[in-house]
Amino acid sequence: MDQPQTPKTAAVLVIGDEILSGRTQDTNTAYIARFLGSLGIDLKEGRVVGDDQAEIVAALNALRARYDFVFTTGGIGPTHDDITADAIAAAFGVGIDFHPEAMRLLEARYAPGEFNDMRKRMARVPLGASLVRNSVSAAPGFHIGNVFVLAGVPMIMRAMLEAIEPLLPRGVVVHSATVSAEVPEGKVAGGLAAIQKDNPDVALGSYPFYRDQGYGVQLVARGRDAAAVEKAAQAIEAMLRELGAAPVRL
Amino acid sequence: MDQPQTPKTAAVLVIGDEILSGRTQDTNTAYIARFLGSLGIDLKEGRVVGDDQAEIVAALNALRARYDFVFTTGGIGPTHDDITADAIAAAFGVGIDFHPEAMRLLEARYAPGEFNDMRKRMARVPLGASLVRNSVSAAPGFHIGNVFVLAGVPMIMRAMLEAIEPLLPRGVVVHSATVSAEVPEGKVAGGLAAIQKDNPDVALGSYPFYRDQGYGVQLVARGRDAAAVEKAAQAIEAMLRELGAAPVRL
Repeated sequence: MDQPQTPKTAAVLVIGDEILSGRTQDTNTAYIARFLGSLGIDLKEGRVVGDDQAEIVAALNALRARYDFVFTTGGIGPTHDDITADAIAAAFGVGIDFHPEAMRLLEARYAPGEFNDMRKRMARVPLGASLVRNSVSAAPGFHIGNVFVLAGVPMIMRAMLEAIEPLLPRGVVVHSATVSAEVPEGKVAGGLAAIQKDNPDVALGSYPFYRDQGYGVQLVARGRDAAAVEKAAQAIEAMLRELGAAPVRL
Repeated sequence: MDQPQTPKTAAVLVIGDEILSGRTQDTNTAYIARFLGSLGIDLKEGRVVGDDQAEIVAALNALRARYDFVFTTGGIGPTHDDITADAIAAAFGVGIDFHPEAMRLLEARYAPGEFNDMRKRMARVPLGASLVRNSVSAAPGFHIGNVFVLAGVPMIMRAMLEAIEPLLPRGVVVHSATVSAEVPEGKVAGGLAAIQKDNPDVALGSYPFYRDQGYGVQLVARGRDAAAVEKAAQAIEAMLRELGAAPVRL
């Protein structure tokens, strides 16, 4: 039997003042998390920093040293506040220049005379980087080393993920089972801890919810061994029935 | 004239495997960002880590050393995966014990015999911490040093923010003005860069949008001097009109 593969790890670095001001709700982290999950890659950390080169460089260098992959979102547009490409080049200690293929892609997009200097900024990528194309817009992202530099606009970011999917390794995916019950979390906590002890290869999480129609808890079992996840989920259902609650598998 | 006060800074540390798996969309960071904005405190960084003590300790110690305040969300419930209180105690190098007032609050909440050992876990706080009460549930958060430890459930987290509002300093708030126009971002980028140069005390951001009805850009001016923000916003409107676009102030 093959040795089980160590799961690949990843981090997301969200770049943009608009996230830190609360103006824009980041949804890219959750989307990338699910995308990586489908490939069997574990998202281990997320960070948000503003449009500040020193902050971007420090965060990126910490994350790329620690995880197999880093995905950044934001800051690759044409305006003066789009400084991600320069920051990535600085983090890698490489130069930055107009990428010939990016120039061609962008030039083809605009009417004659419309490909102005600011738009040309979008063709600047760190030396040694490869382009990440997308099906939505001409402006590419890029990847360098273990870092993928993606757009902040969700629609474009998602198209870029599609484009890089063939470049990423596949691991064993994490299976999950969710059991919901209208029971207070504190009532199931003891039984859940016992089930966790009996099922060390499965991670059990407990997520209380409060809705107009009432409250309850969703109990989630996650793990790379589908049979072990199912066994834990069934133990959770049995525990809930013993407490007089009606478990619902989601 | 008084010297302008240096703005206070803050970080948010979101704790929970459910965020990193993409199961749950974090909305607490954006909410805390806006809450801090209303007090004139600058959110400078956000992080997300899983339910892992070493990760929580490392992130918390990095953030609390660097920023005036740190707000954590998640991991303070009754179940075995709620390890935030222990992690905070470890980060501060202090012990942890049942807090008498927290015990009273929780005990009063439950029917006789229902205040079980797992629920008592919610009364454990690091030594030296003060409780953060909330109007929604009996289980308190706490604060220790410059760190505020809040619930992950948004409704409860928001009630806890209300409770700590009197403890936080007030600074000069950041004003913002948003001008929207149905014009490609690349067309305004040059004019915007020039306006940024003329208005160094205002931060100008450019946020393209794509909708079914068309695309455009929102240009945002932010700064602590309301008159300077207004001046920059008017310069943006004039620039847009010169380009033949119809600016809309949001």
